[in-house]
Amino acid sequence: MIYITRRERFNAAHRLFREDYSDSRNLEVFGKCSNPNWHGHNYTLFVTVKGEVDPATGFLVNLKDLSEIINQFVIEKLDHRNINVEVDFMKGKLASTENLAIGIWNELKTPIDQLGAALFKVQLYETENNFVEYLGEE
Amino acid sequence: MIYITRRERFNAAHRLFREDYSDSRNLEVFGKCSNPNWHGHNYTLFVTVKGEVDPATGFLVNLKDLSEIINQFVIEKLDHRNINVEVDFMKGKLASTENLAIGIWNELKTPIDQLGAALFKVQLYETENNFVEYLGEE
Amino acid sequence: MIYITRRERFNAAHRLFREDYSDSRNLEVFGKCSNPNWHGHNYTLFVTVKGEVDPATGFLVNLKDLSEIINQFVIEKLDHRNINVEVDFMKGKLASTENLAIGIWNELKTPIDQLGAALFKVQLYETENNFVEYLGEE
Amino acid sequence: MIYITRRERFNAAHRLFREDYSDSRNLEVFGKCSNPNWHGHNYTLFVTVKGEVDPATGFLVNLKDLSEIINQFVIEKLDHRNINVEVDFMKGKLASTENLAIGIWNELKTPIDQLGAALFKVQLYETENNFVEYLGEE
Amino acid sequence: MIYITRRERFNAAHRLFREDYSDSRNLEVFGKCSNPNWHGHNYTLFVTVKGEVDPATGFLVNLKDLSEIINQFVIEKLDHRNINVEVDFMKGKLASTENLAIGIWNELKTPIDQLGAALFKVQLYETENNFVEYLGEE
Amino acid sequence: MIYITRRERFNAAHRLFREDYSDSRNLEVFGKCSNPNWHGHNYTLFVTVKGEVDPATGFLVNLKDLSEIINQFVIEKLDHRNINVEVDFMKGKLASTENLAIGIWNELKTPIDQLGAALFKVQLYETENNFVEYLGEE
Repeated sequence: MIYITRRERFNAAHRLFREDYSDSRNLEVFGKCSNPNWHGHNYTLFVTVKGEVDPATGFLVNLKDLSEIINQFVIEKLDHRNINVEVDFMKGKLASTENLAIGIWNELKTPIDQLGAALFKVQLYETENNFVEYLGEE
Repeated sequence: MIYITRRERFNAAHRLFREDYSDSRNLEVFGKCSNPNWHGHNYTLFVTVKGEVDPATGFLVNLKDLSEIINQFVIEKLDHRNINVEVDFMKGKLASTENLAIGIWNELKTPIDQLGAALFKVQLYETENNFVEYLGEE
Repeated sequence: MIYITRRERFNAAHRLFREDYSDSRNLEVFGKCSNPNWHGHNYTLFVTVKGEVDPATGFLVNLKDLSEIINQFVIEKLDHRNINVEVDFMKGKLASTENLAIGIWNELKTPIDQLGAALFKVQLYETENNFVEYLGEE
Repeated sequence: MIYITRRERFNAAHRLFREDYSDSRNLEVFGKCSNPNWHGHNYTLFVTVKGEVDPATGFLVNLKDLSEIINQFVIEKLDHRNINVEVDFMKGKLASTENLAIGIWNELKTPIDQLGAALFKVQLYETENNFVEYLGEE
Repeated sequence: MIYITRRERFNAAHRLFREDYSDSRNLEVFGKCSNPNWHGHNYTLFVTVKGEVDPATGFLVNLKDLSEIINQFVIEKLDHRNINVEVDFMKGKLASTENLAIGIWNELKTPIDQLGAALFKVQLYETENNFVEYLGEE
Repeated sequence: MIYITRRERFNAAHRLFREDYSDSRNLEVFGKCSNPNWHGHNYTLFVTVKGEVDPATGFLVNLKDLSEIINQFVIEKLDHRNINVEVDFMKGKLASTENLAIGIWNELKTPIDQLGAALFKVQLYETENNFVEYLGEE
């Protein structure tokens, strides 16, 4: 049983706010992250998969395949996008790093299963000081 | 003669586009950076000042003072902001890293002079792969 | 169930030694880390908390609150301090990275509980080559 | 129960290929990593050991001892070497990061036991974008 | 006058040796870098160009164009290659970081001129501890 | 003409203060850096030398020799030391990063000349946010 992790990156705009809150209440709860004119981040994503080494290749998975899946199902939807406005799997959700990490997990679960490995962890850095990890635990 | 550099960071949204271009021409010239719904970055700023060591303190400048100037004149205007919409010194300019570095230089020139040092360089990282340097050269 | 991590930093002096050892025995056991005139480090601290996402905010915890707790209970006591001499929760303990990580855990456990999350891990880097992790396991 | 991690680095050449495959099949399966003229990496290795803090020293293990073990059993065999050709514990194995991490685990298991700690994890970075973790799990 | 820098990376094998030296003399002069079975590195390349900001775009150069030139003229020739054996512009030269940086400068000079900017600096990291800079100075 | 840079690191204690100031005046001028019980840092030092590539070796200088000089003349004097108390070339000087960089330059100038290269720059990081550069300019 081994774990392999692939790093990918995307740059996106977002805003933390609730439509049912006034601007001043959003400011109180979410601080400057609620700016109605948006702000953005260079997000760094680490995707960890788990499984057994294939004796024929020495690989758990081919990293080229893993990278392509992450790009197709996650990066292309998020990179240079507005997370609140343009990302299908974040519609109706608060654009927090927590929800984004869970959303990315849900996007990747099935295609990584089909690759023959198990998705183990999604780790998402918003800045060098903050990151979220989701392991699919209830 | 010595050089001292202070790192500060800000997270902002922006968009590369010209109002006199159609969306399709903006896409052609600026690529995905022209997305009308914005995207964003964790910008990293290095400000280098130059001068002589004060024998009374061993300092070129007090880094606390330098950091406060950078925060007052630059970071507070940019952090969690939309560069195209909300930043006074970028009004009417293309929000490229080049123009942003020059704008930051112009903001910092006078207050750093008043601190008793000379602004030597503004270095601005947009991502880990791209950065701009401006030394005030014509 | 999700995990969120906050990075904070502090710069401190310390020394590894036992009062009941001679200087030469301290040198033998602790090497140059036993220097009676002290040395120091830029410590980097990662605090991971665990819990459920609050549907009202999209947050596990507000990172501003988490950062304030870490600063109040840990950073203000350690930053620009002498760990052996000035830090209440390290009194009478060897100032190793291991003991420091455990001490930080004990400082943070209660206030993080009161924030509505569970402290999951304290990770403490002494240098880029060495770090300790403590998860509260007996 | 505490965890301590030591980082070490080595630079090595390798090639991903099977002798029973043609060059074109190797290229198809392993891509440019199959180049018959070799390529190489700056590998970064993190070795995590687990155990209890010794009250006499404040240490789980003396990091100098841990570093010496990693250097003797792993780094000296790999640094500035060709992994396929010169490394005894990789003979007959595909030189993938997965197999290399498992090989390093097997080299370190016994000497770290003898140090009085338990080997917990081997983490091996091939590039800044890819790393493997092995915890000795079947 | 502004400077913009693009980072690119490549992984390659090499060996430091002279054909007219014996193996033992090569070992004496070049140390473990002379290993006849090769070793390798993750090289990190920073290419800095200099010029004026185009008022029509806010760019010195389009970074996509700059990246394509670096990839076409440098990375494709070096990545997953053996520098001594397979790289046309290094034929007959000692595969030191110094010579490699100069070779990269010579490859990039003309195509970057044609892009409308001036090549200012090639910076090449062999490891995190060593890098070379070449500015085209005689 | 080429430039080569070697990174070395040291961990040291220091304090910013003047003996002719009261504790309260030291606190006012130097802030928490004046703590009488010391604090410390992981300093990172980059030493850049300049010269011509030796056609016989492809080297400007042998990095092993450069590293040994930096270790003999600088690192051994500073690592795990108290900069104010134990470092001969800092005696009677304020232990600021500026003065330390100049002191390191003066230590390295002659031995690097004797190596057949010219010392070009000393760059010294005190933290990830602050660094000083000294080029020997009056």
